[in-house]
Amino acid sequence: MAKKVAVIMGSDSDFDVVSAAIDTLRELGIPVEARILSAHRTPEEARKLARTARGAGFGAIIAAAGKAAHLAGALAAETTLPVIGIPVKSSTLDGLDALLSTVQMPSGIPVATVAINGAKNAALLAAQILSVEDGEIAAKLDEMRREMTREVLEKDRALRERMNREDD
Amino acid sequence: MAKKVAVIMGSDSDFDVVSAAIDTLRELGIPVEARILSAHRTPEEARKLARTARGAGFGAIIAAAGKAAHLAGALAAETTLPVIGIPVKSSTLDGLDALLSTVQMPSGIPVATVAINGAKNAALLAAQILSVEDGEIAAKLDEMRREMTREVLEKDRALRERMNREDD
Amino acid sequence: MAKKVAVIMGSDSDFDVVSAAIDTLRELGIPVEARILSAHRTPEEARKLARTARGAGFGAIIAAAGKAAHLAGALAAETTLPVIGIPVKSSTLDGLDALLSTVQMPSGIPVATVAINGAKNAALLAAQILSVEDGEIAAKLDEMRREMTREVLEKDRALRERMNREDD
Amino acid sequence: MAKKVAVIMGSDSDFDVVSAAIDTLRELGIPVEARILSAHRTPEEARKLARTARGAGFGAIIAAAGKAAHLAGALAAETTLPVIGIPVKSSTLDGLDALLSTVQMPSGIPVATVAINGAKNAALLAAQILSVEDGEIAAKLDEMRREMTREVLEKDRALRERMNREDD
Amino acid sequence: MAKKVAVIMGSDSDFDVVSAAIDTLRELGIPVEARILSAHRTPEEARKLARTARGAGFGAIIAAAGKAAHLAGALAAETTLPVIGIPVKSSTLDGLDALLSTVQMPSGIPVATVAINGAKNAALLAAQILSVEDGEIAAKLDEMRREMTREVLEKDRALRERMNREDD
Amino acid sequence: MAKKVAVIMGSDSDFDVVSAAIDTLRELGIPVEARILSAHRTPEEARKLARTARGAGFGAIIAAAGKAAHLAGALAAETTLPVIGIPVKSSTLDGLDALLSTVQMPSGIPVATVAINGAKNAALLAAQILSVEDGEIAAKLDEMRREMTREVLEKDRALRERMNREDD
Amino acid sequence: MAKKVAVIMGSDSDFDVVSAAIDTLRELGIPVEARILSAHRTPEEARKLARTARGAGFGAIIAAAGKAAHLAGALAAETTLPVIGIPVKSSTLDGLDALLSTVQMPSGIPVATVAINGAKNAALLAAQILSVEDGEIAAKLDEMRREMTREVLEKDRALRERMNREDD
Amino acid sequence: MAKKVAVIMGSDSDFDVVSAAIDTLRELGIPVEARILSAHRTPEEARKLARTARGAGFGAIIAAAGKAAHLAGALAAETTLPVIGIPVKSSTLDGLDALLSTVQMPSGIPVATVAINGAKNAALLAAQILSVEDGEIAAKLDEMRREMTREVLEKDRALRERMNREDD
Repeated sequence: MAKKVAVIMGSDSDFDVVSAAIDTLRELGIPVEARILSAHRTPEEARKLARTARGAGFGAIIAAAGKAAHLAGALAAETTLPVIGIPVKSSTLDGLDALLSTVQMPSGIPVATVAINGAKNAALLAAQILSVEDGEIAAKLDEMRREMTREVLEKDRALRERMNREDD
Repeated sequence: MAKKVAVIMGSDSDFDVVSAAIDTLRELGIPVEARILSAHRTPEEARKLARTARGAGFGAIIAAAGKAAHLAGALAAETTLPVIGIPVKSSTLDGLDALLSTVQMPSGIPVATVAINGAKNAALLAAQILSVEDGEIAAKLDEMRREMTREVLEKDRALRERMNREDD
Repeated sequence: MAKKVAVIMGSDSDFDVVSAAIDTLRELGIPVEARILSAHRTPEEARKLARTARGAGFGAIIAAAGKAAHLAGALAAETTLPVIGIPVKSSTLDGLDALLSTVQMPSGIPVATVAINGAKNAALLAAQILSVEDGEIAAKLDEMRREMTREVLEKDRALRERMNREDD
Repeated sequence: MAKKVAVIMGSDSDFDVVSAAIDTLRELGIPVEARILSAHRTPEEARKLARTARGAGFGAIIAAAGKAAHLAGALAAETTLPVIGIPVKSSTLDGLDALLSTVQMPSGIPVATVAINGAKNAALLAAQILSVEDGEIAAKLDEMRREMTREVLEKDRALRERMNREDD
Repeated sequence: MAKKVAVIMGSDSDFDVVSAAIDTLRELGIPVEARILSAHRTPEEARKLARTARGAGFGAIIAAAGKAAHLAGALAAETTLPVIGIPVKSSTLDGLDALLSTVQMPSGIPVATVAINGAKNAALLAAQILSVEDGEIAAKLDEMRREMTREVLEKDRALRERMNREDD
Repeated sequence: MAKKVAVIMGSDSDFDVVSAAIDTLRELGIPVEARILSAHRTPEEARKLARTARGAGFGAIIAAAGKAAHLAGALAAETTLPVIGIPVKSSTLDGLDALLSTVQMPSGIPVATVAINGAKNAALLAAQILSVEDGEIAAKLDEMRREMTREVLEKDRALRERMNREDD
Repeated sequence: MAKKVAVIMGSDSDFDVVSAAIDTLRELGIPVEARILSAHRTPEEARKLARTARGAGFGAIIAAAGKAAHLAGALAAETTLPVIGIPVKSSTLDGLDALLSTVQMPSGIPVATVAINGAKNAALLAAQILSVEDGEIAAKLDEMRREMTREVLEKDRALRERMNREDD
Repeated sequence: MAKKVAVIMGSDSDFDVVSAAIDTLRELGIPVEARILSAHRTPEEARKLARTARGAGFGAIIAAAGKAAHLAGALAAETTLPVIGIPVKSSTLDGLDALLSTVQMPSGIPVATVAINGAKNAALLAAQILSVEDGEIAAKLDEMRREMTREVLEKDRALRERMNREDD
């Protein structure tokens, strides 16, 4: 059966950032469960989710948090499933605090960190993880890449035409 | 009965930094219990300590960790006792990662953060917290301050004498 | 008698940040005195407040300042009560200057530093300090935590319901 | 058949950092192929490896590079397998340049970034990725975690005994 | 025949920054070709452009990209023509990520980096490179400099007059 | 009568950095008084020095301190004489904390900040301040500059000769 | 005769920041000359101003510039008068580039650096420099300080009254 | 006639870093003149060199300096030849000050900046600039690239053999 991906955000104020991850996973046909759970405000529920995730059919956990962003690390401490961290930019320090709090994990407990606010990439990374054993997802990812390439080349073509008209 | 202070380090490699906190607390006659507990490697034991700390007679918890230093925050999430965080410098980023991971806590769960590697100040802060209701500790802290002032003034006097001799 | 908390801001322009601390302390039923005092512009008055704070029934001092934020450190130099520093973000450097000026105190004079603009957490930390010997405040803090947890779980429940409806 | 993991380093000077990844993968019984390939000095060979990796039986690619660390991103651009980036600290900027160059990938091409010099965690993350569909690796990872916990608890016990002896 | 300059941007969202380079080159009468090509989304096309650039009559390549800005480095790896990198500021980290990803190139593959968003200077640098063997461009650059000096001096004169009127 | 310069260091551990300031002032024949006084550990003595400095014949105060370097600012708050701040690099953060704590002073109380560990420049700046009304010091500074220029040109000449020999 | 102060800005876009310096100097009755001169665009005129400044009756030079802010340093290289640098925040890096470019001067050529955008403090520092030998300016600065203190105390009084009313 | 390259360092202490540029240029058969000239200590000589460089047969100027590294920018202000800046790491701030002071040039005066301490790349960039019109240098650069590729591939082959032996 297809593995699910959990998308956890530390606060409902992260939803605007995180929704891109949910949309991308749905676009790829990957079942997604979204939760609001905090490493500090609901530690017990966060723990429970992480501990039961493998048994519940999840293949990866995405965790988004800002400031001293401990959520991804706290989940990673309770499971050996891959945990993907999205550092969320908040009102000070431009996301650097969340980035360092997410990525600089101590030896033994990795967090797969993506760019600050990089929710779409977190979803793609989760899909890539599932794609290792799921050829259908691999095929969809490859097609998405080709589409992305086509879009850039189309914009490139449009720019060149505009430039040529201007040169005339 | 006198309140105790718990001194938790995330790894035994932090002991050289943390020992200054233990020494200072002992010097002030404050009972101290030192532990090696990791937010990521022994989350359950860390949690248990924090949850039972108030009932067990602790008045403050000092937590030292490096890199994505979640230890102080993880303990703070499980108790309403004051938790003091010591960001520990590790081999990269000069302690900035530990500082931001410790101090930039989300609203609701404060960590009282001291300077990078500031173990002695963490102990003094714990003592200051106990001094609010313990006149004896307050008196010892005041005396320690006066002694510190005397030491600086003595060094100042020595420097001025040396400078005067050089000027002659 | 219940200990009071002093909330000092370096400039009246810090009031918008600092007011969250005042509100939280009042919500917890802790007597609060708010002052505008500057380490550089009114050093004498700042000093006097710090020196007489313990005798005047204060249990903690909260100090908020921006840029080269010396206020918390200057107060901490004149008392052995716990001093809590709020680094305030100003128009340049995103609060990093205030954070480092507040937290990197030299050995001997600690400042309990919270997050940049973390006024609510400063108030909670002050309450936690008072809670060491005041069971009533401890109980209120515990209840506030449970309420906070309930709020997150309620938002989590709402999100899951919305997601389920979208999946249908 | 068991999936392999490729470990690519941008320069042979990265070997001292990267060898921890190779050792950990071998310890977990995961077949590993190590290569020295540079995004800038051997772009063609790097590309070829990435493009053929899925077909050649790899389940994840680990890439380590310093400074303007483009290696992981360049490989990620040529495959939809998960690519794990290890930012390597070089002689200036303490690894910050490598961290930002690795993690801040544009939308569409994720790199799963671990801590600066975090080679062991890169290997664990690769193993976690394989563990999604490989129960044997999952079991080994769980056992490794438990062993790690035991080690910390043993050190904690030793510290407490030493402290108790000193208190007597 | 006059050498051309290629202006490559990693995304069409960079056009607002990059257009200053195109305008400046046109103002200097230097033939310019603008392209949208991404190191990660269209690696093959980017490569092809770099490899054929010298033969196609280009004298310099300007590449603009944000975040983990690999574009200039990826092009530089495929040509020995001078490649000029413009780090583009994006929504987080104020351009520092793009700056370090562009300038901190490993030994062997230089990128001539200009200021964050410094598109006009990138064009001027390209023109200066062509000016080494093209006296006409050198003369135009010298004239542009003199004009720039005249403008500053004119503003200086206006300011002094205004100040004098205010002093009266 | 010639004005004196006070050189204050926050700790005797700063002496190795600060001694270059004392040496330079003596070399210029400017009377110097060196003190060890801390904004936090001897606030009263620091204050007294600043308040009486103008009357005691000082023309400038140099203050050196590390970490949350408040010394220069604390002195500047108590005098309208120019105060020159030397940020001292300590064991973490490479001097950035001291630099920001010294230079980012709030409006109303300036500190004339020199480079991290820039003790010689602090002395030269003090001498330049005195030189405004003291032609003898101005003449000595001009001569020192010329000597500095001569030294660089002499080294330049030596390098060119060595290069020429190598080219032969 | 009273010494003058030169206020140089690197671009007319700096005027909004710099005007606070001009206003403050005028308020103190110090003659001021404002100029727009660039280290890079009008190096000759900048040089000439610095070289002739002492003879022309200037007692200090204030220089404001952004980005790679060389203006203050370039002027300081051509005079032994005190040069005060104002780092100006521009559209990227939040003023850090200008701060480091201004303050980190090599040994031999100091620049008295104030806070980012700290134009008022630059003017006060210039006045303090002149005050060393000019009792009238010293008296005005002292009065300005007292006024500043009065203003803070007045705001403090107003806040306390408002708080008291709210407490009733 | 073949164009020359000037290599200027701000201090003889930069020679150890800069010598790699001289060696690389000689290896490529490009005539090089090395100088010690400082933007601040010998501004006149630096200026003269820049102004006469084009006429004297130079095709590019390389300038290396540390801290508030103004040398490259000061030279660039006096010529329209391409100026390449090498930011040199000094004892504080890990080269970040020199990097920002070199690269963040204002509009109108570009400096082609390479990595911190990137002397070899500065030389290669100078050679690439000359290669635009000099096929012989282009050919040498291409050969150097191929050699560099061969070296990496040789190291890659050696590593794989060693790994295979270990696997047996």
